Amino acid sequence: MMVDTARRSGDGPRQAEAIFTAVLELLAEHGYDGLTVEGVAARSGVHKTTIYRWWADKDALLGAALLNSALLELPVPDTGSLRGDLLALTRHVLRLLTTEPSASVVTAALAAAGRPVLAGLAHKFFADRFDRELVLFERAVARGELPADTDAKLVVDLLAGAVWTRVLLRQERPPADFAAQAVDLVLAALSNRKVHPNTRNVPA
Amino acid sequence: MMVDTARRSGDGPRQAEAIFTAVLELLAEHGYDGLTVEGVAARSGVHKTTIYRWWADKDALLGAALLNSALLELPVPDTGSLRGDLLALTRHVLRLLTTEPSASVVTAALAAAGRPVLAGLAHKFFADRFDRELVLFERAVARGELPADTDAKLVVDLLAGAVWTRVLLRQERPPADFAAQAVDLVLAALSNRKVHPNTRNVPA
Repeated sequence: MMVDTARRSGDGPRQAEAIFTAVLELLAEHGYDGLTVEGVAARSGVHKTTIYRWWADKDALLGAALLNSALLELPVPDTGSLRGDLLALTRHVLRLLTTEPSASVVTAALAAAGRPVLAGLAHKFFADRFDRELVLFERAVARGELPADTDAKLVVDLLAGAVWTRVLLRQERPPADFAAQAVDLVLAALSNRKVHPNTRNVPA
Repeated sequence: MMVDTARRSGDGPRQAEAIFTAVLELLAEHGYDGLTVEGVAARSGVHKTTIYRWWADKDALLGAALLNSALLELPVPDTGSLRGDLLALTRHVLRLLTTEPSASVVTAALAAAGRPVLAGLAHKFFADRFDRELVLFERAVARGELPADTDAKLVVDLLAGAVWTRVLLRQERPPADFAAQAVDLVLAALSNRKVHPNTRNVPA
């Protein structure tokens, strides 16, 4: 009966969020090797057979948790300006990497990133996020803030990469205005491309 | 006698590079937990007591290997232009992350980055690299290519971060001109700041 109810939601069992939270907590606490479906069942209070009914194994479960858990959610901002949107996005990444519980989850996921299964999950995770971030650039193009041929993925990689590098590689706490500095530097480049928007097709 | 010879070099035992190579190979093959001083002695052919004479424990040894091994060396470019230097630097990072044996070493080091000891080593490693990269910006300022107040660390984090994000997080192989695209975007921003260099102190 419970399975029917769950299946009607079309999106995993009703207790999905409790299961995902348990998966990410256990990953953060014990690493990939210490993560087991049994442990997730015990932590979430959802029976093991219910979990296996939805996910074939630990890797499928971990993939679902990384992609769908509210803990790592990416709220796509809509502030009305490209600067506001990029600032909100960059600050969100900074928050994920510097506050708990997400910081520990990210570190643990990164620790497992050398394994082929996790590499595949990382690819899916960031492709999914980028698909959603694209709308932010499409809106900016529609508003005339960006040329249509802007390399959105490069912009995201520069901004998110600066945060990852400062926090996780350098192991430094960025200054309070770090996100704004990064965004304004990248925006200066993008707006520079637009200085003479009407001269592009004008013969010399 | 050998110890005397080694001490005269002032920089660890004569066999330092063989030891460092063994450390990084074992780290790449077996991860941090599988790395032992005994294993390093066996792989490098240097007696364990010699290794312990120079490094107190496995963590000190790993730190020395990460900082000093030729395998992860950062050749600071001097091409004559800021663009040339940043391009060489970004391409070097890209090469480290995408070719063996360095790619496996980086992945293994990253996998251990959640441990406090490794976090401290990462901090040291990137601080050491940045100290050396600074000269590249100082030369650009001297050539008049950059304002003196340019945030060099932010520029490095944007460029290196874009490479790390594309390769290790997205698990994608960047296009051939990725480094040039990233460098040119960031340079457009920096040159934009210089459009009216002489108006900065002019009263409105």
